[in-house]
Amino acid sequence: MHTQVECIACLTKQAAGLAREFLAPHKREPFMRRVLEGLARFDCDAPPPLFTREIYRIYRDMDGKGDPYGEKKRHSNEQALSLAPRLRRIIASRPDMLEAALRMAVAGNIIDFGLGAHGCEEIAVEDTIMNALDSSFAVNDIPELIERLRKAEHVLYVADNAGEIVLDRIFIEHIGPDRVTCAVRSAPVINDATLTDAAQAGLDRLCRVIPSGSEAPGTPLSLCSEEFLECFAAADLVISKGQGNFETLDAPGREVFHLFMVKCPVVSQEVDVPMGSFMAMKRG
Amino acid sequence: MHTQVECIACLTKQAAGLAREFLAPHKREPFMRRVLEGLARFDCDAPPPLFTREIYRIYRDMDGKGDPYGEKKRHSNEQALSLAPRLRRIIASRPDMLEAALRMAVAGNIIDFGLGAHGCEEIAVEDTIMNALDSSFAVNDIPELIERLRKAEHVLYVADNAGEIVLDRIFIEHIGPDRVTCAVRSAPVINDATLTDAAQAGLDRLCRVIPSGSEAPGTPLSLCSEEFLECFAAADLVISKGQGNFETLDAPGREVFHLFMVKCPVVSQEVDVPMGSFMAMKRG
Repeated sequence: MHTQVECIACLTKQAAGLAREFLAPHKREPFMRRVLEGLARFDCDAPPPLFTREIYRIYRDMDGKGDPYGEKKRHSNEQALSLAPRLRRIIASRPDMLEAALRMAVAGNIIDFGLGAHGCEEIAVEDTIMNALDSSFAVNDIPELIERLRKAEHVLYVADNAGEIVLDRIFIEHIGPDRVTCAVRSAPVINDATLTDAAQAGLDRLCRVIPSGSEAPGTPLSLCSEEFLECFAAADLVISKGQGNFETLDAPGREVFHLFMVKCPVVSQEVDVPMGSFMAMKRG
Repeated sequence: MHTQVECIACLTKQAAGLAREFLAPHKREPFMRRVLEGLARFDCDAPPPLFTREIYRIYRDMDGKGDPYGEKKRHSNEQALSLAPRLRRIIASRPDMLEAALRMAVAGNIIDFGLGAHGCEEIAVEDTIMNALDSSFAVNDIPELIERLRKAEHVLYVADNAGEIVLDRIFIEHIGPDRVTCAVRSAPVINDATLTDAAQAGLDRLCRVIPSGSEAPGTPLSLCSEEFLECFAAADLVISKGQGNFETLDAPGREVFHLFMVKCPVVSQEVDVPMGSFMAMKRG
C-alpha cells in the first residue's frame, strides 16, 4: 500500500506522541527535525509502516531505550490473559469452535490501547470481541479459510500486536499448534508483538515462534529474514493479522489470508469498506 | 508562544488537508515534501502561525490559486449574517449591551467550520454563542476591558476569522465605530478574515479597516505594516481576537486584551485552562 498525504500527517503525529511521552524535553525538537527530514525524503510508493521503522530507529539512536511501549504491552497482554478463560468457555459453547476462535482473533486486532496509531478512535475491546462472534464481515473469506485450515500441514501465522497475541494463541490452539509457525516482529515498534510478548502470551510453549526479521510494524518481505522467507514459501497457508501486515505483506502469486479490523480512513478507502469493519480477505 | 512537537504534527495535518482538498493528485506529494523540509528547519521558538504562513506560501507557489477556503469563508460570513438580526435583538434585551456584544464576539471565535485547524473538536456555533452570554470566563478581565472601552478614544481591534467577523462588527457597533480601527490579514490563510471578508460583513462601511501586513494566521509584529504598527502604538486600547493572535501578538510593555476560545491542547496547557474555555485576558 502506498503512503498518502494523510499517512504523512499520521506518522508525524505518532512521532510527536513518542517524543512527548518518552524523550527528554531537550531531545524532542531535534528528534522531530530528523523525523521530518526523513519523511521529506521518504519514498511514498512504500507503505507507511516502513517509515514507522525509521521513526523508531531515530528514537533508539537518540535515546537508547529499547521499547518505549514495553510496559503498556505487558499490561495489554495481562488484560487479554485475564479475559482468556472466559473467551475459551464461550468458544467451547459454539458449534464451530475453530470459526469462533478465528472471529475472536480478528476482533482482538482492536487492542491498540488508545495509541491512536492509525488515527482510529478508541473502541471497547471486550464488546468488540463479543460482537465479532456473530457480526458480518465486510469481506468474508472465512469459509474458504476454514476449509483450507482443516487441510493445511504447515500454517504460517503472522502476528500483529501485543494483547491481541493472546487471542492469536487461542486461535492457534484450535488450528492445532503442531502445524503452526507464528512470526512476530524482530524489534519493538509501537505496540507490535515481539518474542517477549509471544513468551508472555505463552505462545512459545505452544508452537514454533520466529522473529520475522522486520523491525517495521508490518512484514515487508524485503526486510524479512531467510528463516521467515523459507516458512513463507513453504507454508500451505499464510494467515496475516492486522493492518500493518495488510499494508506491507503483498506478495503476488502467494495467497495470504488477511484478518484485520479497518482502523484508519486511508485503509478504509483502499479496501472500500467502512472504518471499523471486520475483514477476512484472501489476496495474492 | 513557542512551537511544540504537537504543533508540528498539527501543522503537518493542516498541510495534508490542504493538499488533499485543493491540490491536483500529482502535486500533493511534492507539496508535502516541501512542507516537511520547511518544518524540519523551522525555528521552534517562533509561534506556529508563522509556519502556517509558509505552508500557504508553498501552496500558492505550487498552485497559484489565491484563496483555497474562499468559498467556505463566504458561506461562513453568510451564515453569521443570517444570525445577526436575532443576535442584535438578544443584545438589545440585555442590561449591559456592550458586555453582551463582547461575549457574543468571543463565542464567535468558534466559527472554524470544521477545519480542525488547531486539532479542536467541532462545536455547535449557535449554542456556543448563546451560552457565552451567561457563561463564566476562565480568565475574566471583562470588567476592566468594559471600563477601558468606555473611555478609550482610539481602539485597535485585531480580527481573526471569517464568519466571526460579523460578530466583531456587532461588537464594534456597540463600542462606537468612529473610535475603532479594525485590522485583518493581508493575505488569505486558512479561514482568517481578509479585506474581502470585512467587506462582506459590512465592516468597511462602519469603521476604518486596515490589512495588518501579516500573511500568517496571527499578528506577529515583525511581519506587520507601518500602518498597523502606528495604530498599535497610538491606540488607547488593543483588542485581539482568537488563538492565532494570542499565539503571535505578544508585545511586552503594550497591554493587549485577548478575547478567544481555547481550541487546542497546546494553548490549553500554555494558559492552564480547559479546552473550550472562554478567555478575556489582559496581557503585556
